[in-house]
Amino acid sequence: MKNFDINEDPHRRYNPLINEWVLVSPHRAKRPWQGQNEKIHTDALPEYDPTCYLCPGNVRANGESNPKYESSFVFENDFAAVKQQPILFEENSKPTFFKAKPERGIARVVCFSPRHDLTLPEMNLPSIENIIRTWQKEYTDLGSVDYINHVQIFENKGSVMGCSNPHPHGQIWAQSSLPTQVEKTQNSLKAYFEKNQSNLLQDYLQEELKLKERIVIENERFVALVPFWAIWPFETMIIGKRHVTKITDFTPEEVSDYASILKRLTIKYDNLFETSFPYSSGIHQAPTDGESHPEWQFHMHFYPPLLRSASVKKFMVGYEMMGEAQRDITPEKSAAVLKALPEVHYKNK
Amino acid sequence: MKNFDINEDPHRRYNPLINEWVLVSPHRAKRPWQGQNEKIHTDALPEYDPTCYLCPGNVRANGESNPKYESSFVFENDFAAVKQQPILFEENSKPTFFKAKPERGIARVVCFSPRHDLTLPEMNLPSIENIIRTWQKEYTDLGSVDYINHVQIFENKGSVMGCSNPHPHGQIWAQSSLPTQVEKTQNSLKAYFEKNQSNLLQDYLQEELKLKERIVIENERFVALVPFWAIWPFETMIIGKRHVTKITDFTPEEVSDYASILKRLTIKYDNLFETSFPYSSGIHQAPTDGESHPEWQFHMHFYPPLLRSASVKKFMVGYEMMGEAQRDITPEKSAAVLKALPEVHYKNK
Ligand SMILES: O=P(O)(O)O[C@H]1O[C@H](CO)[C@@H](O)[C@H](O)[C@H]1O
Ligand SMILES: O=P(O)(O)O[C@H]1O[C@H](CO)[C@@H](O)[C@H](O)[C@H]1O
Repeated sequence: MKNFDINEDPHRRYNPLINEWVLVSPHRAKRPWQGQNEKIHTDALPEYDPTCYLCPGNVRANGESNPKYESSFVFENDFAAVKQQPILFEENSKPTFFKAKPERGIARVVCFSPRHDLTLPEMNLPSIENIIRTWQKEYTDLGSVDYINHVQIFENKGSVMGCSNPHPHGQIWAQSSLPTQVEKTQNSLKAYFEKNQSNLLQDYLQEELKLKERIVIENERFVALVPFWAIWPFETMIIGKRHVTKITDFTPEEVSDYASILKRLTIKYDNLFETSFPYSSGIHQAPTDGESHPEWQFHMHFYPPLLRSASVKKFMVGYEMMGEAQRDITPEKSAAVLKALPEVHYKNK
Repeated sequence: MKNFDINEDPHRRYNPLINEWVLVSPHRAKRPWQGQNEKIHTDALPEYDPTCYLCPGNVRANGESNPKYESSFVFENDFAAVKQQPILFEENSKPTFFKAKPERGIARVVCFSPRHDLTLPEMNLPSIENIIRTWQKEYTDLGSVDYINHVQIFENKGSVMGCSNPHPHGQIWAQSSLPTQVEKTQNSLKAYFEKNQSNLLQDYLQEELKLKERIVIENERFVALVPFWAIWPFETMIIGKRHVTKITDFTPEEVSDYASILKRLTIKYDNLFETSFPYSSGIHQAPTDGESHPEWQFHMHFYPPLLRSASVKKFMVGYEMMGEAQRDITPEKSAAVLKALPEVHYKNK
């Protein structure tokens, strides 16, 4: 019988953050692709687009005008999925099958830059530091609203990720409940902390720094790596080397190093297929429920959909929806590919 | 303060099958859409396509020729995500962070019809019954392989669901482990069964049949409904009215009624946006591990991506990936829309 070779044989890997498995099929990247190709948008964008509702000075759907902002700009989402209005609700005795609860929250849009044509990899470091400081301010402001217990910062980039406007921006959905994925993560972090009196992600990072198989880039205070249990072909995670539960605890040096690793990682992403690389990214950190949460570790996920080229993505469909996530190349392979890419943006070559 | 109105106010609903929540934002369907539109394929397909590797008599990637089959046809997936080869593996003492196990399995493709241009809603009832009998045979054959403990039957339909060939077909991935989603479902079904000595989905169905708010169609032995906790805009579930743990337990009458409800449901789907409606569907049923599994109830999920039209889908991205699934119209609204649609296929009007 053949000995198990993790680089060759189909296997499952365990994700200790959410207590789920992923099916890894290393050999499967070789299959030919006859399916759907994504549209590639290669038109150069203007610095200012008079029809863009996010550009400085322009009018939004609700009739308000954006200020002539010069760095970042935050406003309430005109079509928020959650609302601030308090709702009277009596827990009733309906059977388990019909459990529903009103959810209060605040949804905001964060414009990263007045420039319509720039994304993170092409911005300068002071601009990226400014975005991080904006996230810090929003986490503090939203988190201090009495009924807000969780602040989800995220970005959808690229039309393939449902992003309807190329103007660089992210979103923040703050709400009273812990969302499902965050609650799962917190349960795992808590169980580990109670058992080991230490932090799951910090302990994991120590092991990864020894093995050096999945590290993409690092600097003095941050690491970007492909998690051992990554689902998306080029999924990565940014973690700080110090145990920090939330973004507002970063020192000014950490803000700089975080900005720098964000820029370097997204440059590599753009260079991978020489395209403005689509992804959803998001920050997981301590909830704003007033507890101390030593089990938490600030980290940022990048979930990019592309698999083979700028136009061929991984489809998380039938088996993945009914069974479990499945990937076609190993995380080690992906990390090696990303690591080998140049750190100069392809447009500036 | 305003009283909670489940038809108007943002809320969360609980999914007792997998113990997760979904964020429902009824008001949000009104937002304008400026994002990506899917390509719509309207070209009429030929009954036989000489370049299709699934058509009868044609040659596949591995050089083998398909037989001149006349009903359904099953073959091993040429690019399987799992392999049959046994792998020698010693459980080692690596830390929690690097848990991996080899996974054995068999992956098959099920061609639904020799006709290249037909999909379920356009097939006749005997052909659909034949597909169900093929699924029964595969569940039995694959399930009786000693190392196979789970048989996942599913279909990806439409290029937007990663389907690379319009020839009507589904897949079966059979493997030694219970996939993550199935394990979560089994845990919930088991806990309910142990607590109540009855079946979660049968009890749920009784309530739904009383309320009649989410039933799309029914016949003597089957119901198609939009689950109270549905994630996808037009998600549905087919359940039998009798407690049956697996597809091989269906009586001939149940096979007929199942075929009939499959046809009626997929006709409604096609009629919704007058397009060949994309979805991933899949059957959840008892594992093939040799236990009796009274907690299980055979059911079939349909996860269709479309939201507003044939070309605008729901994107499960940033917030959904980091936080939790979010939907823009209520399941009750979706059920009413589907219920009101004609049962004659739009092409035959
Ligand atoms: O097996 P296929 O049709 O080539 O591939 C399709 O279905 C599989 C199972 O859901 C997915 O893993 C693939 O991403 C998808 O493109
Ligand atoms: O808020 P947007 O950009 O209009 O919408 C996008 O992001 C949201 C949050 O991830 C998703 O719910 C939508 O499906 C997606 O199209």
